[in-house]
Amino acid sequence: MKDMPSRRLGVAIVGLGGAVGTTMVAGIELIRQGKAGTTGLPLAETLHPGLVAYQDLVFGGWDLYADDLAAAAAQHRVLDGPSLDAVRPALSALKPWAPAANVDFCKNVTGAAGSNRVTKRGQADSIAEDLRRFKAEAGVHNVVVVNLASTERLVDPTLPQFQTPEAFEAALDADDPAIGPAMLYAYAAIASGVAYANFTPSVAADLPALVKLAKRNRVPVAGKDGKTGQTLLKTVLAPALRGRALQVDGWFSTNILGNRDGLALDDPASLASKLGTKGSVLDQILGYHVANHKVRIEYYPPRGDDKEAWDNIDVSGFLGQRMQLKLNFLCKDSILAAPLAIEIARCLDLAHQRNEGGVLDALGTFFKAPQTADGKEPEHAWFEQERRFRMWLDGTGDMEATGLTKAARRLANVR
Amino acid sequence: MKDMPSRRLGVAIVGLGGAVGTTMVAGIELIRQGKAGTTGLPLAETLHPGLVAYQDLVFGGWDLYADDLAAAAAQHRVLDGPSLDAVRPALSALKPWAPAANVDFCKNVTGAAGSNRVTKRGQADSIAEDLRRFKAEAGVHNVVVVNLASTERLVDPTLPQFQTPEAFEAALDADDPAIGPAMLYAYAAIASGVAYANFTPSVAADLPALVKLAKRNRVPVAGKDGKTGQTLLKTVLAPALRGRALQVDGWFSTNILGNRDGLALDDPASLASKLGTKGSVLDQILGYHVANHKVRIEYYPPRGDDKEAWDNIDVSGFLGQRMQLKLNFLCKDSILAAPLAIEIARCLDLAHQRNEGGVLDALGTFFKAPQTADGKEPEHAWFEQERRFRMWLDGTGDMEATGLTKAARRLANVR
Amino acid sequence: MKDMPSRRLGVAIVGLGGAVGTTMVAGIELIRQGKAGTTGLPLAETLHPGLVAYQDLVFGGWDLYADDLAAAAAQHRVLDGPSLDAVRPALSALKPWAPAANVDFCKNVTGAAGSNRVTKRGQADSIAEDLRRFKAEAGVHNVVVVNLASTERLVDPTLPQFQTPEAFEAALDADDPAIGPAMLYAYAAIASGVAYANFTPSVAADLPALVKLAKRNRVPVAGKDGKTGQTLLKTVLAPALRGRALQVDGWFSTNILGNRDGLALDDPASLASKLGTKGSVLDQILGYHVANHKVRIEYYPPRGDDKEAWDNIDVSGFLGQRMQLKLNFLCKDSILAAPLAIEIARCLDLAHQRNEGGVLDALGTFFKAPQTADGKEPEHAWFEQERRFRMWLDGTGDMEATGLTKAARRLANVR
Amino acid sequence: MKDMPSRRLGVAIVGLGGAVGTTMVAGIELIRQGKAGTTGLPLAETLHPGLVAYQDLVFGGWDLYADDLAAAAAQHRVLDGPSLDAVRPALSALKPWAPAANVDFCKNVTGAAGSNRVTKRGQADSIAEDLRRFKAEAGVHNVVVVNLASTERLVDPTLPQFQTPEAFEAALDADDPAIGPAMLYAYAAIASGVAYANFTPSVAADLPALVKLAKRNRVPVAGKDGKTGQTLLKTVLAPALRGRALQVDGWFSTNILGNRDGLALDDPASLASKLGTKGSVLDQILGYHVANHKVRIEYYPPRGDDKEAWDNIDVSGFLGQRMQLKLNFLCKDSILAAPLAIEIARCLDLAHQRNEGGVLDALGTFFKAPQTADGKEPEHAWFEQERRFRMWLDGTGDMEATGLTKAARRLANVR
Repeated sequence: MKDMPSRRLGVAIVGLGGAVGTTMVAGIELIRQGKAGTTGLPLAETLHPGLVAYQDLVFGGWDLYADDLAAAAAQHRVLDGPSLDAVRPALSALKPWAPAANVDFCKNVTGAAGSNRVTKRGQADSIAEDLRRFKAEAGVHNVVVVNLASTERLVDPTLPQFQTPEAFEAALDADDPAIGPAMLYAYAAIASGVAYANFTPSVAADLPALVKLAKRNRVPVAGKDGKTGQTLLKTVLAPALRGRALQVDGWFSTNILGNRDGLALDDPASLASKLGTKGSVLDQILGYHVANHKVRIEYYPPRGDDKEAWDNIDVSGFLGQRMQLKLNFLCKDSILAAPLAIEIARCLDLAHQRNEGGVLDALGTFFKAPQTADGKEPEHAWFEQERRFRMWLDGTGDMEATGLTKAARRLANVR
Repeated sequence: MKDMPSRRLGVAIVGLGGAVGTTMVAGIELIRQGKAGTTGLPLAETLHPGLVAYQDLVFGGWDLYADDLAAAAAQHRVLDGPSLDAVRPALSALKPWAPAANVDFCKNVTGAAGSNRVTKRGQADSIAEDLRRFKAEAGVHNVVVVNLASTERLVDPTLPQFQTPEAFEAALDADDPAIGPAMLYAYAAIASGVAYANFTPSVAADLPALVKLAKRNRVPVAGKDGKTGQTLLKTVLAPALRGRALQVDGWFSTNILGNRDGLALDDPASLASKLGTKGSVLDQILGYHVANHKVRIEYYPPRGDDKEAWDNIDVSGFLGQRMQLKLNFLCKDSILAAPLAIEIARCLDLAHQRNEGGVLDALGTFFKAPQTADGKEPEHAWFEQERRFRMWLDGTGDMEATGLTKAARRLANVR
Repeated sequence: MKDMPSRRLGVAIVGLGGAVGTTMVAGIELIRQGKAGTTGLPLAETLHPGLVAYQDLVFGGWDLYADDLAAAAAQHRVLDGPSLDAVRPALSALKPWAPAANVDFCKNVTGAAGSNRVTKRGQADSIAEDLRRFKAEAGVHNVVVVNLASTERLVDPTLPQFQTPEAFEAALDADDPAIGPAMLYAYAAIASGVAYANFTPSVAADLPALVKLAKRNRVPVAGKDGKTGQTLLKTVLAPALRGRALQVDGWFSTNILGNRDGLALDDPASLASKLGTKGSVLDQILGYHVANHKVRIEYYPPRGDDKEAWDNIDVSGFLGQRMQLKLNFLCKDSILAAPLAIEIARCLDLAHQRNEGGVLDALGTFFKAPQTADGKEPEHAWFEQERRFRMWLDGTGDMEATGLTKAARRLANVR
Repeated sequence: MKDMPSRRLGVAIVGLGGAVGTTMVAGIELIRQGKAGTTGLPLAETLHPGLVAYQDLVFGGWDLYADDLAAAAAQHRVLDGPSLDAVRPALSALKPWAPAANVDFCKNVTGAAGSNRVTKRGQADSIAEDLRRFKAEAGVHNVVVVNLASTERLVDPTLPQFQTPEAFEAALDADDPAIGPAMLYAYAAIASGVAYANFTPSVAADLPALVKLAKRNRVPVAGKDGKTGQTLLKTVLAPALRGRALQVDGWFSTNILGNRDGLALDDPASLASKLGTKGSVLDQILGYHVANHKVRIEYYPPRGDDKEAWDNIDVSGFLGQRMQLKLNFLCKDSILAAPLAIEIARCLDLAHQRNEGGVLDALGTFFKAPQTADGKEPEHAWFEQERRFRMWLDGTGDMEATGLTKAARRLANVR
């Protein structure tokens, strides 16, 4: 099957009508029409027989807002006028499916849809049914799920009902209020044998219960929280600061953004989830605790989907002398995120073909808070993540070591 | 000898009295006194039996200005008051040796010393004699030379007299005006069996004639132009931009600095040398030509040794949408450079102990324009340079591969 | 008296041992010693017979911390080493007086002193007594009070006890908990006939009760919250944006600072006071409400007394097109504040000599939230403030008009 | 005539097809259609009976490029898609007149038109004829000329032929090569009794000969070089730095821009003109010479008409301590310039109605290098310029004084 010229992949998106979701769908449509190139798609130049072609991606998914995708895309103002015109016919034919949602988990984003859901078990069943129907109707070889929904409030993953598949299912049957929408999608996908990636900071497939289920069912899962802008730069620069032995005395990060994501993060509970995934990367990379690492995310409507990150880094160098490095990234949230989500979907499918189940550590390069198969602290240094990812693509990832020098030592040991 | 606890290394510096040279000497003295830590020294945490201890470095060298090092350091204003006080006794005892210099090669920096030099051959002999005397008087196990002098004017390295050791020596005997001071130091060191590193953009050991001589004499050489600030960041960030498939439409780099280096670069001929070493890194890393890569260096006296880099990077992402990344690095030139020069000296000595001769490719991590043993285009991506450097340190550098994926393939082949 | 060559002025500072207070005292001492110039002192070049000479200022004041001023100054790290050495004898002879303080009003700054105060009336009496003693012992012609203490929590100035001098005094006698320390100092000064300026955002002489008392007693008062950095720039730039008809769609201001002020503002109650005085300037200058004006102040210890302001301004221009202006001010809090506080003290004394009582509108140029004599909205545009201030200095302030064009019309009317 | 409701003004633009010219024409058309507001037009809220209404402006002018204005506007990419669509019919009907041009004066901008011009006298006559025809055909009450052409090379205005109208005319008849195109347009306008403004740095109506002619003919002239971005900010901020007695140790200004203006300035001769008008403002405002005031303009194609200014300002404050202020202005050249040029045209017409001849000092607020009637150094501080301009509009400009304190003194003298 791997060599079939026309493998088609169905991508079911949680939050299909959002800025990122509509940009994914529109982007692939523009590529199909020959009106957009592959800039921004990290694997565009990676020829790999197992990766489905961009134009062979088929989209579906759920959203709180029932608008067709052309209407949704127009609202997000990510696409320019000519692009929007070109994709209108295709996008207006696509309407999101009714979602599983829970206003208690994401206060600032509420749509008209999704109100009269029944039990949580019922919702999970309905999601699984959606996936079956999608696969059949779209005529695709495989389906994967990518979560792009707004950030949910922080949940304690150490609760007992989250520790085993059995406990989780019992809680599901008991309509446990601790189970949030993101978990429902993750569970329904994994239980159906459908690979799942979490592009958001919400708690989902990273629950011990779902990790175990994914391993047991040999379903690939990956997450979480797409590493697009400020955190990407942080994990690119911090290793260099360490390499040059410059001590980080403080790192102050401010973000201003004005899209629906920003609005969701204006709710302190959702913000806590986000800051959690942003916060830990520095200490792991540098090897010491940075007491003054502060991250702020501010809702600032004038920007819309444009996002601005301002970072100030205080470092001490030789003889304790102080220096400052400042970064100012004027970026576009969905433009950075959409191609990553596309590549993640293709990689989930590759793993599925290879019969790899459980957490895909190798996809850490795409995430702010990479899930690890063993639950241990992930590698955050981007270049090391990238090296491991490329090795995984090549099928040599099983030899992967955990650090530069160790890699070298391992090499020596092989002889 | 490798395991002796008290191996001592003599470091002979061209431009000893400059801001970087005095900072090296003062820094090691402060470490010796327990008044400074090892922040900024990349190998401080690398325990390696072949690397001489910091406190076992002994300094000497040449300078156009005859001031003792305490006076010179006071003038450069790199050290703070208490540090300067602490090192004054040690530094005031150290006076530079009379230099080989040529005003035609570096117009804006002229000192009182070095005027009545005789022939170029005579100068080379005098340098070699200085090195012999230094080794004897300092009682060190080995001596290395590091060039920290002001940037000289650009010289055409393809001239016939620069192609073979024999042609170079003939030109030397003929007092050829094309031979500049940096070449004289490099030649004298290599001919004397003394390892040589070029921390400046000047043409020196990178002449084909001297590369051949170094290989023949089994003398380690490395260069050139220390990668301290803006170019370091460029070679850290550019690979990530490539990794994310963001297309670089333009990269505008401005530097303002006010020290003697800046003054030297106010001479267009010297500036040309500098810009040459800064310019090529982007294209190599990105794999395509960046038409709008502009680098400006501006002499701006208010800053003294403090240096400021401002970079604007224009990128296109998915669907051709434009974003900007701006960097502002408020750094200290000598504080960044001195520890690198110290590590380079220690590494030259390590290579000498290992009997490695010719160009040390593995030291590319320290240079803007890394010399390569085969004369081919060097690797510029900092993380790959760093990986190779760490492997070389571990003694596994001979297995070194040229890229991430290739490294992975090689691994597969080993089995 | 105005022409006496040796008029001496006593400046009693609330928060004498703070970073600003010690910098004032040290700065005047350095000027006296001829070791510092008058850079940063706005009136240094204004020759005015009524302004006391800088070297004729004599300092005293209260502080929660009992340290002598040399010890305090050393802790604040505002002065460089040589300056601190030069002023040590003078500053170590100066110890703060025991303060009136109330931990309930400023949670994050607590010193050892000030614990066993009796009633609020008792505290007020004690402050008045301190002022009398200071004037007598220092042998000065006049005394003024400047409040430099940490920001207190926000108090509702519309409470009935704050409306008339009589109500305030009754509350004082009743030991009313709504009366905070800043009010006590203001009351004690005004009741004693001593001019008072509030350099902090705390509620003090701006209470209606105290404004009336000041007018009745012909005591000059001015405030509040020194306009040193970010807000100064805002009130300089905003009028130009209006002048060019550029519409401000958003203004995002972040401050990072690490001194005791920053710590005080880490208490949300104190922060509310501060943000209050920072917030209203834009709307008044621009003539419309800027919905997206956000101001953030962040405690960031690596910076100490250094302060960094980062402003992003989103503007729309002709044809609705969007532009951005970003400001990054790397400043020193006390270095900016101390000279303003010095000039304010001199101006209070000038007003006292001129027998001007009540609120000095003309000093608005120095404050983020200028008090006005009529309680109406103040002028915030810095250049107009400055014009009025210079006219007041010249003694033509009574002719002052409220706007540029009106000023011109008034001129015509005079003839 | 002043009160006629339908006064119409013809604006003849030198460089009509350029980015600024097309934006002026398109902007007024959009206002006429009700599709654009008046944001960015400084006098939009100034109700003045003598100012012609925006929709009553009629455009014509010369250009090297013969394209109709719709084609030209499309090329400049200043307007967004919908705006361009809306104005296409109106703009495509407008074609530039054949120009007087001289490749020797502006090397990097050469169009197809304008090649076979005859003598300079012939060119001047042809320009005058164009103006007569324009007035007649457009049916307007008055015509003014605004120069928006690319910057010409620097010319020495002290040459004898530039000192009197007679000498200039003799040189014109002799086809003197020192007479550049900008001078021809200025001469032809002034000689025809048509008001003239120079929005470029080129030497034109600022020649002594033409100033005298304008005064003699009672023709209003104003210039030169529109103050839109970086210099505007400089003249807004510098007075505040002076007001706070902060000493400017250095001011480093870099501009990157990629439009035809940038290309023109890539020619060193044109750049010299531009830097000349940018350079002198600081010293005049601050009252001392800033040794390290550096201005760089860099052609950087990725930006198109977008322009970015980066300013670094080094200041010393109290006790000589150093601070930095950085500005980053992401602006749009033509969007800032077009509304200023529109207002200048309206003001020239107002002056014409008032029978004011010679240099209009009061329009200095719009220019980087304001021309003055007496040839003396102009006021550069923006707020003072603005104050004088508003007084001039009100008709009280004759009472205008030259400085803040002097204004106050004058007030005192009146009594």
